Amino acid sequence: MRLYSMPSSGNSYKVRLLMALTGRAVQVVDCEYGSDALAGAKAGGALPYGKVPVLVLDDGQMLAESNAILWYLGESTGFVPADPVTRAQMLGWMFWEQYNHEPVIAVRQALVSYPHRAAEATPQRLANLLDRGHALLQVMEDRLSGHDWLVGDATSLADLCLYAYTHTAGTRGGYWMDRFPGIAAWLARIEALPEYAGLSA
Amino acid sequence: MRLYSMPSSGNSYKVRLLMALTGRAVQVVDCEYGSDALAGAKAGGALPYGKVPVLVLDDGQMLAESNAILWYLGESTGFVPADPVTRAQMLGWMFWEQYNHEPVIAVRQALVSYPHRAAEATPQRLANLLDRGHALLQVMEDRLSGHDWLVGDATSLADLCLYAYTHTAGTRGGYWMDRFPGIAAWLARIEALPEYAGLSA
Repeated sequence: MRLYSMPSSGNSYKVRLLMALTGRAVQVVDCEYGSDALAGAKAGGALPYGKVPVLVLDDGQMLAESNAILWYLGESTGFVPADPVTRAQMLGWMFWEQYNHEPVIAVRQALVSYPHRAAEATPQRLANLLDRGHALLQVMEDRLSGHDWLVGDATSLADLCLYAYTHTAGTRGGYWMDRFPGIAAWLARIEALPEYAGLSA
Repeated sequence: MRLYSMPSSGNSYKVRLLMALTGRAVQVVDCEYGSDALAGAKAGGALPYGKVPVLVLDDGQMLAESNAILWYLGESTGFVPADPVTRAQMLGWMFWEQYNHEPVIAVRQALVSYPHRAAEATPQRLANLLDRGHALLQVMEDRLSGHDWLVGDATSLADLCLYAYTHTAGTRGGYWMDRFPGIAAWLARIEALPEYAGLSA
């Protein structure tokens, strides 16, 4: 298997995180924004519609969408709960991440940290994304203030999915993370997983 | 089971569509925008964060997020492919629907048809949503011009999920659907499923 991955992107990061935690051997092709590698992968047809991450299977089939790749790599591991309700709740958080969390919390990080997005980073837009992001983080806090994990009683794909853009929300996105002690404890819980140390940032 | 559903919302519609196609008996509570039923459901705690659809299980557990509800109700039916790659590709389309398709194609329909959204429906925004929506519909057309279904060779949750806001994109959203003959044939294919006739609009 080969993963086309953007080092600076949380959507790619979440797949690399799952790989590290499961010890799955996947060849990673780094395609940073603006790089020759990204241009080459697009020109070579490896990236349908130009988006990363993409997982190319050994038989040539392709999987797009970060959370669908997480599902594929995670389905036979302990990161997908056996109970049907818990499994559906896990997917619920993953859809929530793509519909609600990513378009706000990842976007503010991109506007602040990518030079090519700077023109969009107006004070009004940054303020709007800050307020909306804090409200979204509060949704996570509501769950994590009383539970170790987002669903059930073990780490699942929902945790890995939401870890990606949440663990950099303060440092890269300017969110006020000291408001959310439940999230802080949860981030630390993921970082204490034994296999986490093998992950490159 | 009890489904809190908004009659005018595609996210609720897709769950009702799956219920009709599988003959699943679920009590439906209609919560139209602005209705007493919606206000009552919110006040009664049935809708975490005020969103519909929500599925309440017989033991009181709740499932939010339309596509996670589809997964829960569809997992043991023929609408979830047995092959792991096809299953992950199905989820890929469902994440794509929430991240890309819904925020454009559903939003233009809402701006055009909901009186309480009319103030947001500026000509510039509507034109932007028209262009972006046509590009998204082209992604579906690229697949459907050569295949009967979005993944594999049978109807899956990906088709039901994307049918919801696509089948009203022309009539409610003003999209130019005659550009997309593959989508038109696919819509007709879903509407020809024997159980489709039992569905209320």
